[in-house]
Amino acid sequence: MSEVLDLTCDLISRPSVTPDDAGCQMLLAGRLQRAGFTCEHLRFGAVENLWATHGSGAPVLVLLGHTDVVPPGPREAWTSDPFVPQVRDGVLYGRGAADMKGSVAAFVVAAERFVAAHPAHAGTLAILLTADEEGDAIDGVRKVAQAFRERGQRIDWCVTGEPSSTARLGDLLRVGRRGSLSGTLTVKGVQGHVAYPHKARNPIHQAAPALAELAAKAWDDGYESFPPTSLQVSNIHAGTGANNVIPGELQVLFNLRYNPHWNAPALEAEVAALLDRHGLDYDLRWHRSGEPFYTPEGTLRAVAREVLGQFAGAPPEESTGGGTSDARFIAPLGAHCIEVGPVNASIHQVDEHVRVDDLEALPGLYARLIERLLL
Amino acid sequence: MSEVLDLTCDLISRPSVTPDDAGCQMLLAGRLQRAGFTCEHLRFGAVENLWATHGSGAPVLVLLGHTDVVPPGPREAWTSDPFVPQVRDGVLYGRGAADMKGSVAAFVVAAERFVAAHPAHAGTLAILLTADEEGDAIDGVRKVAQAFRERGQRIDWCVTGEPSSTARLGDLLRVGRRGSLSGTLTVKGVQGHVAYPHKARNPIHQAAPALAELAAKAWDDGYESFPPTSLQVSNIHAGTGANNVIPGELQVLFNLRYNPHWNAPALEAEVAALLDRHGLDYDLRWHRSGEPFYTPEGTLRAVAREVLGQFAGAPPEESTGGGTSDARFIAPLGAHCIEVGPVNASIHQVDEHVRVDDLEALPGLYARLIERLLL
Ligand SMILES: [Zn+2]
Ligand SMILES: [Zn+2]
Repeated sequence: MSEVLDLTCDLISRPSVTPDDAGCQMLLAGRLQRAGFTCEHLRFGAVENLWATHGSGAPVLVLLGHTDVVPPGPREAWTSDPFVPQVRDGVLYGRGAADMKGSVAAFVVAAERFVAAHPAHAGTLAILLTADEEGDAIDGVRKVAQAFRERGQRIDWCVTGEPSSTARLGDLLRVGRRGSLSGTLTVKGVQGHVAYPHKARNPIHQAAPALAELAAKAWDDGYESFPPTSLQVSNIHAGTGANNVIPGELQVLFNLRYNPHWNAPALEAEVAALLDRHGLDYDLRWHRSGEPFYTPEGTLRAVAREVLGQFAGAPPEESTGGGTSDARFIAPLGAHCIEVGPVNASIHQVDEHVRVDDLEALPGLYARLIERLLL
Repeated sequence: MSEVLDLTCDLISRPSVTPDDAGCQMLLAGRLQRAGFTCEHLRFGAVENLWATHGSGAPVLVLLGHTDVVPPGPREAWTSDPFVPQVRDGVLYGRGAADMKGSVAAFVVAAERFVAAHPAHAGTLAILLTADEEGDAIDGVRKVAQAFRERGQRIDWCVTGEPSSTARLGDLLRVGRRGSLSGTLTVKGVQGHVAYPHKARNPIHQAAPALAELAAKAWDDGYESFPPTSLQVSNIHAGTGANNVIPGELQVLFNLRYNPHWNAPALEAEVAALLDRHGLDYDLRWHRSGEPFYTPEGTLRAVAREVLGQFAGAPPEESTGGGTSDARFIAPLGAHCIEVGPVNASIHQVDEHVRVDDLEALPGLYARLIERLLL
């Protein structure tokens, strides 16, 4: 068994369902310490975070990953136990194989090789791991970034191991992420009996035209390589089941994924103005999950484009699509951020997997990036 | 204690929460039998129904009532136990006092007095009671009417004791009821992640313009004394709570209260056409609760108008508003139906009550109606 496959299997065997680290970071810290890294355990609340560094000063390159995984769902749905890694026909199966224990194992193997070969490299090579990426993401990298800001920790480049590839390893370089903003809307009406509608005010009826307008609204045409800003209503609830009662309240949960055309305050004002135009009596609470980030042309993008092109045989697509990642917390520190990882087709699903060939190529890919940036 | 107050209290003491009769009909059948009525117990499923007749042939006048009550809710919310009748300051409190154990007691007292005074009256005086009016209303008068249709039972006039009065006894004569039709709509979309809206189809977004149009639609301008037809969405549900998932389905429950401009098939076709115009992928199931009924000018309305005017001191308002009642099942047999009962302000609420003065006037009012129709 190869070194990276071995380590990935060790990690998958630990059922680190978010926000539980299940000992993954201790295992990795032990290896990094033996390789000469200085390890700092940043525990916030119940969440483990690991900050391991080698070298000192600028430039600072951070390899960013998470040891937590999403719940596997029912065991019966899986072909083999999600926490017992199994290779079948050249494919490794297990929860976290692609998102992102394979990348984390590859980070560590690449870092060990690099510092062994270049003990006196330029600047700082750092590995930052959290166990709260898939969950609330409150006591993870969000808190770490806050601590970094307070202590003046500079970061120049950040490579996240999120599974970015679409068909084959290295075919996509993620150079930004949309922002995410959630709204919890309560539309207030007046409860009543369906037989006496003039004595009631139906919040579903009141809200329907506003929801239709929100759903149809074109927010922008995209930004650089970003897709257009999009609003999606994820939940809507009113009524207690009785079919003769006009409900007194309607609850709506929605989410906006937005590009750098917008920021959270501007979107919040736009939505509120639309609801006001419809004359709704409402309460609206916002949760800002992360502003968008975008890494413009520069050293990191140029190097990553070249290295990925060598591995994939063609220049990567440079994209800003997809969900959020912890890079949203690192980018505001002034860092250029990219995401480079394995194929994402199976993540968060049953029978999550990664091709063993891809997994074994990953340490070389990360090592090549490190060499190009810190030598 | 007066005879009708005494009997009403006896009935309230029996906790006949729908569809439980709790012995009410046995008590009443015993009295009616002693008065010379022929009693038939029509039991359908678990539901008790009583059909008591005196005399024979046409015209047939039916006094229609129910012995079941809606659940009282928490005892603490009531000033006194809902099943322990209590008179305070000239008002009788208890579940069913107004809806409609007071009317049922008054029916029996009025019928006893009438047949004692006029043993050889014209036609048939009948009392029909069910214990399934407040609940599913499946094994109650619906089934009884079906049996009547099969055995050719003719009914000319039907007086329901539903609490129709608004401010004082006899101020309103109900001469019709709207129809009620319920729809269960499932709008089908394609589930997905909010970050990839182009791979999903959000059923909330798809449905919003259709719901807005349904809510805004003017169905008609009313019919005779009927209010306009009205659609109310009572329940709407989509989403599992997660704010990053576009739900795959939207569930909508709605109810139509309609006047004789419409019938159920026409409304069903109209709603389906609207949904089709919006291009929705949907499943729609209908529940027809009852077609509207309307009693035009004739003997029953004329007599009732005059009798109520004598009791209330002014001619009654003649109305077709309000919810449904069991008259919807009797009207299709060809009967003219009206509803005459006590003040409805407290029905289905805590501290349900009836003024003792009103209660004591009721047997006289019903007896006067009977005399005018069967002598
Ligand atoms: Zn991930
Ligand atoms: Zn009733």
